Amino acid sequence: MRNIKLVIEYDGTDYCGFQIQKNGKTIQAELEKALSRVCNKNVKITSSGRTDSGVHAKGHVANFKVNTDLDVDSILKGANSYLPKDIVILNAVDVHPDFHSRFSAKKKHYRYSIYNSESRSPLNSRYAYHYKYSLDIEKMCEAAAYLEGTHDFRSFAAKCRLKDNTVRTVYSIDVKKKGKVIYIDVLGNGFLYNMVRNIAGTLLNVGSGKFAPVEMNRILSAKNRSVAGPTAAAHGLCLQKVFY
Amino acid sequence: MRNIKLVIEYDGTDYCGFQIQKNGKTIQAELEKALSRVCNKNVKITSSGRTDSGVHAKGHVANFKVNTDLDVDSILKGANSYLPKDIVILNAVDVHPDFHSRFSAKKKHYRYSIYNSESRSPLNSRYAYHYKYSLDIEKMCEAAAYLEGTHDFRSFAAKCRLKDNTVRTVYSIDVKKKGKVIYIDVLGNGFLYNMVRNIAGTLLNVGSGKFAPVEMNRILSAKNRSVAGPTAAAHGLCLQKVFY
Repeated sequence: MRNIKLVIEYDGTDYCGFQIQKNGKTIQAELEKALSRVCNKNVKITSSGRTDSGVHAKGHVANFKVNTDLDVDSILKGANSYLPKDIVILNAVDVHPDFHSRFSAKKKHYRYSIYNSESRSPLNSRYAYHYKYSLDIEKMCEAAAYLEGTHDFRSFAAKCRLKDNTVRTVYSIDVKKKGKVIYIDVLGNGFLYNMVRNIAGTLLNVGSGKFAPVEMNRILSAKNRSVAGPTAAAHGLCLQKVFY
Repeated sequence: MRNIKLVIEYDGTDYCGFQIQKNGKTIQAELEKALSRVCNKNVKITSSGRTDSGVHAKGHVANFKVNTDLDVDSILKGANSYLPKDIVILNAVDVHPDFHSRFSAKKKHYRYSIYNSESRSPLNSRYAYHYKYSLDIEKMCEAAAYLEGTHDFRSFAAKCRLKDNTVRTVYSIDVKKKGKVIYIDVLGNGFLYNMVRNIAGTLLNVGSGKFAPVEMNRILSAKNRSVAGPTAAAHGLCLQKVFY
């Protein structure tokens, strides 16, 4: 049995997230359909994680086990010819049988994009959240620094149970502005459900003056979702890369 | 009668170009509908030019004459609230009665974007033309230099009549690569129908090795559309700015 690792890019606008579900189009379902057709087998893929409805990816990773004589290049080209134009497999390689796209992942890089201008922008609206009021980038950077390191991120997690381990390590959070777009780049060893969008929503509250940067300490130690900022809109989020 | 100048951004994907037409959605029709509603008059706009079906704009300029007591900010905000999300008015100002968005224009900046990678890219496919084979950027730059200056651009014009004046001045054509995207920035005093897309298609032929840079002289002097390269796809083109 071969084990094949895939790197996938997609525009998540028209999908109900990565993970397969009964009602609604998913990235996983489209991938499995295309791969099953190419390999002439019933292919089931394992993903490095889920992404929410509307979230994009530049480097989502998944793997699947299959018995086939096809070389990886033929699998990649064949599957891409069947995939809709908003999903593409960028890379396909044979990996060790033990490789598991979720359990083997060492870190992940997510980017949250904010279009910060009074006017909305049709040319940016698909991949950046529009925020029309002014934001203090320096304060956002200052607040981000409090979130770096190993913390209990329960205040930033949606739908977690009391017994869940909510400790994660965030290696870095960089906030930078390029033209009218603010990028929040978050690098961590793993993320809780909605964690990056909740960090982005909280940093937006810092930028707008609702929270002082030092309040990140209070928010972290509260271990209570209701004290952090709101969940920022899905379409501003993009899974950039999964590291192994 | 007031004369109001507008700067407009739009994602042209779902439109049959700027100029109003009987069949199909146009940017002009959407603008006139929204402005007529705000001003409570039958508003007709004058455009700095047409854009083809699928072409985008970051800074299209138009103007319209109207009798209204509304301040420009109310017109802008009102119209934006009625416009679909792929069109926005970025700026509205009162201008001299003689201002004409087409006749007063001094120069225009168009950008043609090429996503140059073997894989297609769902996150770039809306605003950049995908070209999968390698391109020699240096040769494209060299060829572009031949097209700068005042020339008869008949070989780059679609649908022009023999009596039409096809002499235009191209101030600069810059070709640069950023990551996997190649930008062709063209600045000129005016452009013939399809001229920028035909220049882009011809430079693609240079980059792929079909034409040598020096052949631009032969193509210009032929004054014959059939000797230049093909018309590059509409969705790679964006009208960046109109100068007055």
